[in-house]
Amino acid sequence: MSGVSRRKLLGLGAAGVAAAGASVAGARMLLDEPAPMPVSAVSALDSVAFYGEHQAGIATPAQDRLHFAAFDVITTKRSELDALLQEWTAAAARMTQGQEAGTFGAVGGVPEAPPDDTGEALGLPASGLTLTIGFGASLFDGRFGLAGRKPAALRELPRFPGDALLPELSGGDLCVQACANDPQVAVHAIRNLARIGFGRVSARYSQLGFGRTSSTSRTQATPRNLMGFKDGTANLKLEDTAMLRDHLWVAEKDGPAWMRGGTYLVTRKIRMHIETWDRTSLAEQEAIFGRDKGEGAPLGLAKEFDEPDFAKKGPDGAPLIGEVAHVRLAHPSSNGGARLLRRGYNYVDGSDGLGRLDAGLFFMSYQRDPHRQFVPVQRALAKNDVLNEYIKHISSGLFAIPPGVRDGGDYWGRALFA
Amino acid sequence: MSGVSRRKLLGLGAAGVAAAGASVAGARMLLDEPAPMPVSAVSALDSVAFYGEHQAGIATPAQDRLHFAAFDVITTKRSELDALLQEWTAAAARMTQGQEAGTFGAVGGVPEAPPDDTGEALGLPASGLTLTIGFGASLFDGRFGLAGRKPAALRELPRFPGDALLPELSGGDLCVQACANDPQVAVHAIRNLARIGFGRVSARYSQLGFGRTSSTSRTQATPRNLMGFKDGTANLKLEDTAMLRDHLWVAEKDGPAWMRGGTYLVTRKIRMHIETWDRTSLAEQEAIFGRDKGEGAPLGLAKEFDEPDFAKKGPDGAPLIGEVAHVRLAHPSSNGGARLLRRGYNYVDGSDGLGRLDAGLFFMSYQRDPHRQFVPVQRALAKNDVLNEYIKHISSGLFAIPPGVRDGGDYWGRALFA
Ligand code: HEM
Ligand code: HEM
Repeated sequence: MSGVSRRKLLGLGAAGVAAAGASVAGARMLLDEPAPMPVSAVSALDSVAFYGEHQAGIATPAQDRLHFAAFDVITTKRSELDALLQEWTAAAARMTQGQEAGTFGAVGGVPEAPPDDTGEALGLPASGLTLTIGFGASLFDGRFGLAGRKPAALRELPRFPGDALLPELSGGDLCVQACANDPQVAVHAIRNLARIGFGRVSARYSQLGFGRTSSTSRTQATPRNLMGFKDGTANLKLEDTAMLRDHLWVAEKDGPAWMRGGTYLVTRKIRMHIETWDRTSLAEQEAIFGRDKGEGAPLGLAKEFDEPDFAKKGPDGAPLIGEVAHVRLAHPSSNGGARLLRRGYNYVDGSDGLGRLDAGLFFMSYQRDPHRQFVPVQRALAKNDVLNEYIKHISSGLFAIPPGVRDGGDYWGRALFA
Repeated sequence: MSGVSRRKLLGLGAAGVAAAGASVAGARMLLDEPAPMPVSAVSALDSVAFYGEHQAGIATPAQDRLHFAAFDVITTKRSELDALLQEWTAAAARMTQGQEAGTFGAVGGVPEAPPDDTGEALGLPASGLTLTIGFGASLFDGRFGLAGRKPAALRELPRFPGDALLPELSGGDLCVQACANDPQVAVHAIRNLARIGFGRVSARYSQLGFGRTSSTSRTQATPRNLMGFKDGTANLKLEDTAMLRDHLWVAEKDGPAWMRGGTYLVTRKIRMHIETWDRTSLAEQEAIFGRDKGEGAPLGLAKEFDEPDFAKKGPDGAPLIGEVAHVRLAHPSSNGGARLLRRGYNYVDGSDGLGRLDAGLFFMSYQRDPHRQFVPVQRALAKNDVLNEYIKHISSGLFAIPPGVRDGGDYWGRALFA
């Protein structure tokens, strides 16, 4: 059944849809309307390969929408956890290709929803969906006999000045990052994984992100965060293979062996004091970041992708990019060469009961070693960034992201359980 | 300055963008990437007319994303409220046309962000943004000398069986529905209105909706709600002008005069017990709604838009569409001909701390008289709908939606304050 697309489910075929093998464009015409999807047509509607050396959703083009979920494992049986990861992998391999989550209850070869799928993505294309799994430190606490396999890099992050972390929005035994160009597709994927995991895992927290705040490819324009600035300009990009090798992917010598080709994810939910920010002058805002708001160029330069010149001084003799400007503090030259692949999303969770928007940045960064990359950068920022007057870190997560699933015989974390 | 698009702001012009008058397609090319927007190209990126007999965002094609906000008025001065509505109208007229929120601080004719705009929508097209204002009953409580102008139709909704309404997520003196095909544009609009209202209004609650659950035009395909069913099939559609006259728009004789050409909005935040629903069989799910899940056809019929046949019986002599099926209970024939224009959105607010997704339907319906239309339908549903085992109404709002703004000399609620 693996070649059957979601449109075939539930007799959609009978409604005149010759589903199997229909092209994305063809499928769209059958919707009788302009597709509800991003213009980048083929690329935004299409599927992203699930199998590969690395998991998708990291060094693949950042999609527009996010649904991130952290789970607690509630079964105490290692075999049940192992089986769940196999079922999740099979479902992820299907859903990322625009198919229903499973074929467990398939009657006469045709999947049924339910039990095979919850149905709300029927008729929607793959929409660039990627599903990326991570393992939190608590998974290695001994319950599952994995204590000896815990990567050193997964040790707890230090406490940073200003941290106001809510335990219930932090941590998690497992995480799944679902990114897609259609939020319905991302929500559908997490929900079906939760459904499959019923009785074995329980959702600890989940977060919707409505707009990307990063670019991970040179073919993407830089989006804006909720402070109105372009975000993602100086990011690791998928085209920079050598940089990714040095700064993103875990190498053999980093250990443990099961992490080779993997990476580490840091998540920080960062609430913004939007209303205060909105009363700050343009000049002050630009000084805080060290870039101009319109073009996103480093102060003193003209273009977004000009390299910042930290030595350049204004007529008053002071550096144009201040000593505590965000881009100076976060720059590799200030942090022993540390680089991150940032892949965060804007969020709005409604308002906070005090008349203020409950909104900010769900920051995510991928790196080869969080303690040598994320930690020094965040330490510098937490200590000196003027931005701290306008933000508050309210959650934190650190996850080991295993390498990619090689083929249908492999599964998420197989090498870990082997 | 009213002809200047958002791209001109902050010297984007200097970055090579010949902004004023650039076509949407042209503007997109300048982004150096496929636009991050729905394919329906011109229509999804374009602007919707702001001025007109009726407010936009009602009988205009339902956009993909929602940001809804309810505000409490905190100033006690009628003149300040009146001034705010004028400023909001000016900002809405601009933002819906893809321009920055204001030109208050314009230096040398070029707006600055801030103070003119918060900036996060710079470079984004209008994206079909509509802004629709409503007045809650509490606005007429005497504070502003409006008690005598309160429409009878704005009287409180009755309590329905099963209601579990949270006061802090209900009501509101004012509401603004922002709908757009890009969530960043919808969020930007509400945030800039909140910013302009600083000191005069305070956000009471706000809600993001990530996918529409209705169609308001025959040119739109029917989307799916989080129960996986097509939602919006039997809806009032903008093409049915005579039906809209009878069921949607307030007529002269309905009174009061300032509401002529307006309508009433009911909002209900309806939490779904997703996990329970996902363990219900397909047959049971279809019986609950009275439609099949794949095609969305009434049970016993073949096509989505076939008229339900409530008399048709199965081999066992029982009606194919059960006596308490949702579509039978909600059908005009069961409710003295009552019809609604539904315009709701799926929401996911994360998870609830008990391992469950905090998700559901932000229901919105527009109608000429909520007490003759929404109320009888909801009474029937609250009493008999089997769906109640899977849902909980957690918030409620009722707003008078004034008619459209005629031109630049008019403003939201001018007739009310006159
Ligand atoms: C709400 C919080 C934050 C906001 C609004 C923000 C915003 C920005 C902006 C506008 C830029 C300049 C454009 C770009 O190169 O992407 C930037 C750069 C950067 N940010 Fe942040 N950021 C935030 C938090 C963080 C955190 C927590 C980290 C990591 C600990 C971080 C690391 C970086 C790095 C590494 C750069 C690139 C610096 C360079 O090489 O030029 N940021 N950020
Ligand atoms: C979570 C709650 C709800 C869900 C999941 C839901 C779902 C649906 C579905 C799937 C349909 C059939 C397709 C269609 O014609 O759109 C439908 C029809 C309808 N619903 Fe609901 N609905 C909900 C709540 C409500 C409420 C609160 C009302 C109004 C009080 C309402 C009024 C209607 C009406 C008027 C119809 C069309 C009936 C007809 O003429 O055939 N629904 N709903």
